[in-house]
Amino acid sequence: MKKKFSLSGMPDFNPLQIKRREYALSVIRESFEIFGFSPIQTSIVEKRENLFGSYGDDGDKLIFQILRSGDYLNKIDINLKNINCNELSSLISDKALRYDLTVPFARFVSENQSTINFPFRRYEIGSVFRADRPQKGRLRQFTQCDADIIGSKSLWLEIDLLTLVDYTLNKFGLTNTVIKISNRKILEGLFESFVSNISFSKFCIIIDKLDKIGLDKIGELLLDSGFVQKDINFIKNLFLLEGSFSDKKSYILSALTINDNLQLGFEELSFLIDNIQKLSLVQNIEIDFSLARGIDYYTGSIFEVSSLSGNIGSLLGGGRYDQLTEKFHIKDVSGVGVSFGLDRLCLTLDDAGLFPDDINNNIDCLFINFGLEEAKISQSYILQLRQFNISSELYPDSVKLNKQMNYANKRGAKFVVMIGEEEIKQNKIMLKNMLNGKQELLSFDELLKIL
Amino acid sequence: MKKKFSLSGMPDFNPLQIKRREYALSVIRESFEIFGFSPIQTSIVEKRENLFGSYGDDGDKLIFQILRSGDYLNKIDINLKNINCNELSSLISDKALRYDLTVPFARFVSENQSTINFPFRRYEIGSVFRADRPQKGRLRQFTQCDADIIGSKSLWLEIDLLTLVDYTLNKFGLTNTVIKISNRKILEGLFESFVSNISFSKFCIIIDKLDKIGLDKIGELLLDSGFVQKDINFIKNLFLLEGSFSDKKSYILSALTINDNLQLGFEELSFLIDNIQKLSLVQNIEIDFSLARGIDYYTGSIFEVSSLSGNIGSLLGGGRYDQLTEKFHIKDVSGVGVSFGLDRLCLTLDDAGLFPDDINNNIDCLFINFGLEEAKISQSYILQLRQFNISSELYPDSVKLNKQMNYANKRGAKFVVMIGEEEIKQNKIMLKNMLNGKQELLSFDELLKIL
Repeated sequence: MKKKFSLSGMPDFNPLQIKRREYALSVIRESFEIFGFSPIQTSIVEKRENLFGSYGDDGDKLIFQILRSGDYLNKIDINLKNINCNELSSLISDKALRYDLTVPFARFVSENQSTINFPFRRYEIGSVFRADRPQKGRLRQFTQCDADIIGSKSLWLEIDLLTLVDYTLNKFGLTNTVIKISNRKILEGLFESFVSNISFSKFCIIIDKLDKIGLDKIGELLLDSGFVQKDINFIKNLFLLEGSFSDKKSYILSALTINDNLQLGFEELSFLIDNIQKLSLVQNIEIDFSLARGIDYYTGSIFEVSSLSGNIGSLLGGGRYDQLTEKFHIKDVSGVGVSFGLDRLCLTLDDAGLFPDDINNNIDCLFINFGLEEAKISQSYILQLRQFNISSELYPDSVKLNKQMNYANKRGAKFVVMIGEEEIKQNKIMLKNMLNGKQELLSFDELLKIL
Repeated sequence: MKKKFSLSGMPDFNPLQIKRREYALSVIRESFEIFGFSPIQTSIVEKRENLFGSYGDDGDKLIFQILRSGDYLNKIDINLKNINCNELSSLISDKALRYDLTVPFARFVSENQSTINFPFRRYEIGSVFRADRPQKGRLRQFTQCDADIIGSKSLWLEIDLLTLVDYTLNKFGLTNTVIKISNRKILEGLFESFVSNISFSKFCIIIDKLDKIGLDKIGELLLDSGFVQKDINFIKNLFLLEGSFSDKKSYILSALTINDNLQLGFEELSFLIDNIQKLSLVQNIEIDFSLARGIDYYTGSIFEVSSLSGNIGSLLGGGRYDQLTEKFHIKDVSGVGVSFGLDRLCLTLDDAGLFPDDINNNIDCLFINFGLEEAKISQSYILQLRQFNISSELYPDSVKLNKQMNYANKRGAKFVVMIGEEEIKQNKIMLKNMLNGKQELLSFDELLKIL
């Protein structure tokens, strides 16, 4: 068997893939800028302690940890006898690969608070890493495109972000999607109404699995977690219920007693619904109380975008987090954000045939190499063409014409330039149009006019 | 003392820094494309075994190693008693952060050889990681911009790359630099003429330190490595010798007997010099036999670019490698490439005042928030402006005007839009030009004309 040198889930991209990703990134970047977001970049490697504990127990397990440098066994006092894996890791690893861009953003805000103009609208595009089992749409290195606003609790920010998501999807021509909205406070209010032996965080992680394992399995997990059958039935029915926000709200209030979290969550969600409707977005908006988002730090609104065709998970996630910066010693700074998954977005655009047709990796001119003297002259013409922004290259070896033409074809060369003995004598250039096969003997000035 | 949450040498970038880096990247990317290079991206994480042994012993020490996932102690048979650090690392780490973009490129070529159109001109821009001691111009995460051609031994490729370097530096307006050229074969030919007790690889690492430690220290290191004083004096004099390639070549041949490596190296270098002169590049070109490049894989031409002002190390390095793909089971595929260091390049452009003045992070319109009803109307105007590619945002909270204007100032807003009770009544918009302070009451159509 051929040896595999690459790691699964850690992708490479070829030229056409890069050009398509760059197109997608340019649309996202422009949208973010037009919505008033400023770019930052945070380091790919973080202190280990910055990440652990931010994503829940399940998240911790997916963090890639980096070994200390140098002779780490000598530097620290480790009793290697009877040590378990987690203990050893915490001693010999002090750095980790970032798991998302949100926690690094909170760290960035803490370290730059004296110069930041709050409320700070920032975007960041970069790779994140999760030691997940790789599958279609789930990589171990993937690119997130985040837009967040930190430093205000205003619900206008949620509305602005939902508008941004709608605007961006629309720029791509992606209309076959649904923007799902919920609120962690409502989920917490529901959770408070039930008896169980698990934490709210664990409850969210179970609910979050719905798309993957289905409603019946969710029921089983809840039963195992000490929920009573009556409550499980209520949850199942709520998740199955179709209808408007007020239908769903009525169903909840008909069965449960209102509490502070439910009350607050309903108020927040009402504000969003009312104002979004007035702005008449393009995409479908859906209130979905089964939406939970597996990540620990959300405290208010939560969002998700799914494609209605295909089955590769969500294209975007996001929400409101009130305490994220506390880990970095800043209190009372609320943030809210959304995160596009570039890799899944590109899969979706490809499936839907939404990449522009003119994305290619062609070159303008390929110069044939007929030998030393010919190459010298070719190389100086090439230099001149490049000054006119005409992309050009010389075939490096004077091998058979056949082989060079074959290369030019595969390279997508628009023109092939041939400068042989005869052309040198006449101080001319032979230009072959690769689209129609036409050949012309030209002066350099005539060549420039055609290119 | 305030707690530091970030890792030294692992940089974050603020919005203005990002805009400047994007400018630099756009110049580099355009240059690479015009010279016929196609973009790829390789994964940030590599198999540990792909990297170890590729950069020499000193390089191995600088590789960031990633712990295996899951309960790695349980999965493998480790006797933790009397284990040393390197042994333990090789057992519990199977992945590492890439150290450069060249070895990953060789891996990419191996894995995609059936679809690649050789000779393959590729560029890649991305972060690389080295566990070095951080200092000015030396980061632990930094961005390389690489252009390589693989699949031909033609020296025209070296010439094309040197032309590319010259072209790119010139686009930046950077003329106060020198392109240093040497050849590993000549260095190897010299080494073969001396008595010592070290390997050629170790010899290169010593020579490579010249800029950092000076000629006298180099002499001491060579003496410690078994070199005789006569040879050390010869080396010192060679490195001090000013003059042309043929002056330096004559000096070598006056003292040493020619050997195969010297012969080949001189031939290759002659070809470069002759043809580069004909193409009349903008930058200074210098033959420098003290240039060694610390990286193990070079086998022919080597390049480096230094700024003549400032002291932050080289802006670019590169060279010819003949055996790099052998590690990935492909034989006889020679490659050659150059690598710009983006971080040092940006430091240099900044020091030289070469970033364009119009790079900024301003927004077109900031809408003041006067309360719920006013915000609703503002938000719908904002949405319309964005459709015309006018970047706009609403201040999220209806706090004091002073505070909002202060935000607008710091945000670099070109215009502030005020929609209060009075403006709503008249169905108008108050526009304040932040440059000249002028205020105008306008209809939306009039607003569009001004923006």
